Amino acid sequence: MNQLQEFEEFMANGYKTYIPHVSIDCVIFGYHDHRLKLLLSQLEVLNGFCLPGGYIKRTDTLDEAASRIVEERTSIKGLYLQQYKTFGSPDRVKFNEIDLDRLAKVPILKNLKSSWLIDQSISIGYYAITDFSLSKPKPAFMYRSCEWYDIDKSPSLLFDHNQMVKDALQTLRSQLYYQPIAQNLLPEKFTLTEIHAVYETILGKKLDIRNFPKKLAFLGLITKLNEKRNIGPHRAPFLYTFNKKKYKKALELGVTLS
Amino acid sequence: MNQLQEFEEFMANGYKTYIPHVSIDCVIFGYHDHRLKLLLSQLEVLNGFCLPGGYIKRTDTLDEAASRIVEERTSIKGLYLQQYKTFGSPDRVKFNEIDLDRLAKVPILKNLKSSWLIDQSISIGYYAITDFSLSKPKPAFMYRSCEWYDIDKSPSLLFDHNQMVKDALQTLRSQLYYQPIAQNLLPEKFTLTEIHAVYETILGKKLDIRNFPKKLAFLGLITKLNEKRNIGPHRAPFLYTFNKKKYKKALELGVTLS
Repeated sequence: MNQLQEFEEFMANGYKTYIPHVSIDCVIFGYHDHRLKLLLSQLEVLNGFCLPGGYIKRTDTLDEAASRIVEERTSIKGLYLQQYKTFGSPDRVKFNEIDLDRLAKVPILKNLKSSWLIDQSISIGYYAITDFSLSKPKPAFMYRSCEWYDIDKSPSLLFDHNQMVKDALQTLRSQLYYQPIAQNLLPEKFTLTEIHAVYETILGKKLDIRNFPKKLAFLGLITKLNEKRNIGPHRAPFLYTFNKKKYKKALELGVTLS
Repeated sequence: MNQLQEFEEFMANGYKTYIPHVSIDCVIFGYHDHRLKLLLSQLEVLNGFCLPGGYIKRTDTLDEAASRIVEERTSIKGLYLQQYKTFGSPDRVKFNEIDLDRLAKVPILKNLKSSWLIDQSISIGYYAITDFSLSKPKPAFMYRSCEWYDIDKSPSLLFDHNQMVKDALQTLRSQLYYQPIAQNLLPEKFTLTEIHAVYETILGKKLDIRNFPKKLAFLGLITKLNEKRNIGPHRAPFLYTFNKKKYKKALELGVTLS
């Protein structure tokens, strides 16, 4: 089967392989050197942007389905991935505003109106985070592009995807002090300047660098090593590493203050 | 229509009113005076216990559907309710282990095998918390009972519901310091002893009462009032109240340390 035949088969009989009425959408954040980006797909037929997404194979767990979707778009295996919220407003996809008659004139979509895809669905939101400089984004079939956009300059999205991004960003920020998010964006050993940049960029605000190490140390998340990195004459900042045990405990028991 | 006819209609045509392949299950926690309980339904035909649950009307948001389910079982309106995770392992309901032939001999279930209910589904987990002494639990149709069980003595549950409870409890604990959970279990003005009991009971461990107020004060969650409660001769502890603004900020920006 070529890609076209595969897609037609998916439209006609996909409900046998995938769970109907349920999709997954992925908010994929990318960080590198003070910049936070968002991976967006441009949907050819609706001429708009949306989050990378897909359906759940009946033999897959939700995490497996989300992993596959994220890997297909970023070309990176094993990204840090978190289910954060499921979306199900009755008007999340406004079928009445989509001109299905027009779409059905696209040859490949001639059977769209009778497809299992055209019915109310809920969508499970996942967020992922990676160093965007390591990814090779790849558009899915029927998509014009799949690219990174600066988070504060990204285009408005179709369906309820703006809300999905907003909620994912709020979750990412609220979990930054107890989930191993920064661990996925920094080398094993890092300087205070590097981790400070990750926190400032994700939280989207200035953090006083003089108090910052105290806060992290208070939570026990990072450990100072007896080791420095030479970055220039008279410049050799101490290196730090994550205290993985403490992270795990924080995760199990909630905020480390309990 | 009587209840029986309603149920038969639901089994035959419910997919027109409700979204198929998707359900909601609710972990309803009850707290009162140092005790944490769980509301469980006993399912007549499978002779086992499970979480109160239901389906999502096509006209409802997910929160509205969960609210309705929780209100129907507890008889309390407007309970504190949080979506926490969606469950979708392919084996979460083991249809192959359920004797459908036997069930189909129950007159009301004669059409069960051809029903839209017998197909793979995902379930959206919500948790709720209330003062159990205020509730009047009421079993759903086809259920033998709906009652409170001490959390550490509750029976094993059908399907993936043990995992749902485990994850809900972990979420409840991790959110105890930034979601207004305790606000739903205490009067407007409360003593340190009262809030200490809520925290100890939900976290399932002893918290040093001498350090406890400092932790809460550090997070800015509670404010000491210039007011005491007389509870006996020479016993008049100070009253406290929640700092709702601080809670709101904590919720938006993550842990209050950022």
